[in-house]
Amino acid sequence: MKKFINDPDSVVSQSLEGMKLVYSDLIDVNREPCFVFRKDRKVGKAALASGGGSGHEPLHAGYVGFGMLDAACPGNVFTSPTPDQMQAAAKAVDSGKGVLFIIKNYTGDIMNFEMAAALCESEGIKSTSVVINDDVAVKDSLYTAGRRGVGATVLVEKVCGAKAEEGAPLEKVAELARRCNENARSIGIAATSCIVPAAGKPTFTLADNELEFGIGIHGEPGSARIPIKPADELVEMMLEPILKDLPHKAGDEAIVMLNGMGGTPLIELYLLYAKAAEVLKANGLPPVRSLVGNYITSLEMQGFSITCLKADQEILSCWDAPVNTPALRW
Amino acid sequence: MKKFINDPDSVVSQSLEGMKLVYSDLIDVNREPCFVFRKDRKVGKAALASGGGSGHEPLHAGYVGFGMLDAACPGNVFTSPTPDQMQAAAKAVDSGKGVLFIIKNYTGDIMNFEMAAALCESEGIKSTSVVINDDVAVKDSLYTAGRRGVGATVLVEKVCGAKAEEGAPLEKVAELARRCNENARSIGIAATSCIVPAAGKPTFTLADNELEFGIGIHGEPGSARIPIKPADELVEMMLEPILKDLPHKAGDEAIVMLNGMGGTPLIELYLLYAKAAEVLKANGLPPVRSLVGNYITSLEMQGFSITCLKADQEILSCWDAPVNTPALRW
Repeated sequence: MKKFINDPDSVVSQSLEGMKLVYSDLIDVNREPCFVFRKDRKVGKAALASGGGSGHEPLHAGYVGFGMLDAACPGNVFTSPTPDQMQAAAKAVDSGKGVLFIIKNYTGDIMNFEMAAALCESEGIKSTSVVINDDVAVKDSLYTAGRRGVGATVLVEKVCGAKAEEGAPLEKVAELARRCNENARSIGIAATSCIVPAAGKPTFTLADNELEFGIGIHGEPGSARIPIKPADELVEMMLEPILKDLPHKAGDEAIVMLNGMGGTPLIELYLLYAKAAEVLKANGLPPVRSLVGNYITSLEMQGFSITCLKADQEILSCWDAPVNTPALRW
Repeated sequence: MKKFINDPDSVVSQSLEGMKLVYSDLIDVNREPCFVFRKDRKVGKAALASGGGSGHEPLHAGYVGFGMLDAACPGNVFTSPTPDQMQAAAKAVDSGKGVLFIIKNYTGDIMNFEMAAALCESEGIKSTSVVINDDVAVKDSLYTAGRRGVGATVLVEKVCGAKAEEGAPLEKVAELARRCNENARSIGIAATSCIVPAAGKPTFTLADNELEFGIGIHGEPGSARIPIKPADELVEMMLEPILKDLPHKAGDEAIVMLNGMGGTPLIELYLLYAKAAEVLKANGLPPVRSLVGNYITSLEMQGFSITCLKADQEILSCWDAPVNTPALRW
C-alpha cells in the first residue's frame, strides 16, 4: 500500500492537526471527543452540524465556517463518528436556537445521529435531522437501507448554511434542507478502487477496460460493470436516470456539481462538465450554477459523480450568498 | 488507459470549454490561437501572462482573474504552447504598460516565450520575462537546462499579480517576481506515474514499495528511487535539501505550499503539512502562510511537493491581498 501516512490508526487525527494549522482563522479542532468547529460562531442562529466517516475530504470539515456548517464530526476512514462526538459538537455550537443534523443515509450514521439526538434532548438541546438520500444508482446498498446520501450533501450544507446565517429559525432551515434533498439526484462512476488505510488493499478490483457504474462513495457496488466508453457517452448514461427520476418542467433550472472522487484530473472534470451542461440544457434542466472539482471524494478513487439540484429562487439566493470555509468560498 | 475523455486530441479544447462555462464570470477563452484571459481587465496596469503544457491544472488557467494572471496559454498535455498563442495573449491583455511573462524553466517554454517576446517587440508591445527554477531535486533534467520550474510558479503568480493590481510598473513587478524565485525552493515525490492521454501508458513504472524522490511535474526522473517510508520521514528527507539550499536566518518566515500531484487524497496532504510545519519551525523557517491542496499537478499522479518561499513584508502583504480566480480566492 503506497500511502503518505505514518500508520493507519493516526491518519485522521494527524490530518486534522494539519488542517487546523492551515485554517486557524476559520476552524478549531476539539479532541476527545473529536469535532471540528467554526471559530466565529454567531450567537442566536440555528446551528448546523454534520459528520460521517473520513476519507471524503473536503466533506465535512472543509465546509465548516461562515455560511455553511458550525461543526463537523469526522469518524475514522469510512466509519461513522460516535454519538458522543455528535452530542459534544451540538453542545459546543448550540446558542439556544437548536441544531440541525445533516446526515448522509448510511445505517451507522443514522443510528448514531439518532442516539446523539436523544442525548441532546436529555441535556435540553433542541435538535432536528435531515437525511440525505440522493443517489439514484441503487435502491438499497451495502451499509444503506434505501438510497445512499452522496453529493447533494455538499449542496444542502451550502444552501442551508446560508439560510441559517440569515437568521432563519431551525424549522425553516430544516424544511429547506428537506426540499433540497427532494429536488436533488446524484450518480457516480469509478475507474479504480480506493484503498482504505486500515485494510491496506483495494476495496474492489476492476478489469483494465471496466468501470463500476453507480459506485458508492465507500466503493460499494453500483448497478453494473460496463466497458470504458468515451466521456460524452458516460455522461449521457449517467444523466438518463437522473433526468428520469427528477421531476422537472419547462423553465426549471439546476445547480450542478461535477465532482471528482479524489484521483481524477481536473482537466477531465471540466471536459465532463461541458457535456453534462449540454445534455441538461437539451433536456430542459439547464445548469445556472455549477461546482466542478473534488468536493465529496473517496480517498484516491478515480471516478466522478454528477449531482443535479433543481433550484427555486430561495435555493438560488442561498447558493449565491457569501461563504467562507476551507473548501468553498465566494 | 482509463481516462474520462473522448479522444486524446480534443482533451485540452473540450476541457477549456467546460472551464469557461463554470467560470464565465471571471474568464473567457480565445480560440486559434488558444489562450484564457481575464474578463474584467484593468486598464493602465502591467499585465501578467503565463502558460505551459496542460496537465498541471489548475495551473495556469485556474489563476487567471483579479489579483493574479491576465492571461494563460495552455499547450497540449505536457507540451509547450506556441509563440503565436503567447503573442496573441500578450496583445489582448496589454494596456500599454507592458506584459510580464512568467515562464517555468523548460527548454520548450523558454524558446517559445523568447520568440513571443520578439514578436511582441515587433508590434510595439513591451514585455519582460522571469524564469522560475525552484526545484532543488536535480541540477539538469529531461527537458531542462538547470533547475526545473515547479511550485514557486503558483506563489509568484499570486504575489506578483497582487503587485500589478496595486498599480506597480512592469519593472517593479518583474523585480519582485525574480526576488520570489530566488527565495523559493521546491521538491517533489511520486508514488505512481501519470498517463499522458496521447501516450496511453504510464510514463514510468515503480515497484509496489518504491517512490521516485525528486520527481518532475512531467514524470521526469528525480534523484533517487527509495523504498516507501512513513510520511514524517519523507517530509524530513524532502525538507533537508530545501533548508540546505535556501539561505535563512533567525526571524525569517515562509509561505509554504504542500501540493498534491493530482491523485493524492487531501487527508494525506493535511497530514504531510502538519509534519512540514513542525520541521520548518524547528529549523528556523516557520510557515506563516500556507496553501494545501492540488495547485500544480501532473494529471492523476499520486505524489506531492513542498514549496517554501522565504517571505519579506512586501511578499507577505502581496500574498494577503484579495484574489479572485477559479482556483484561488480570498
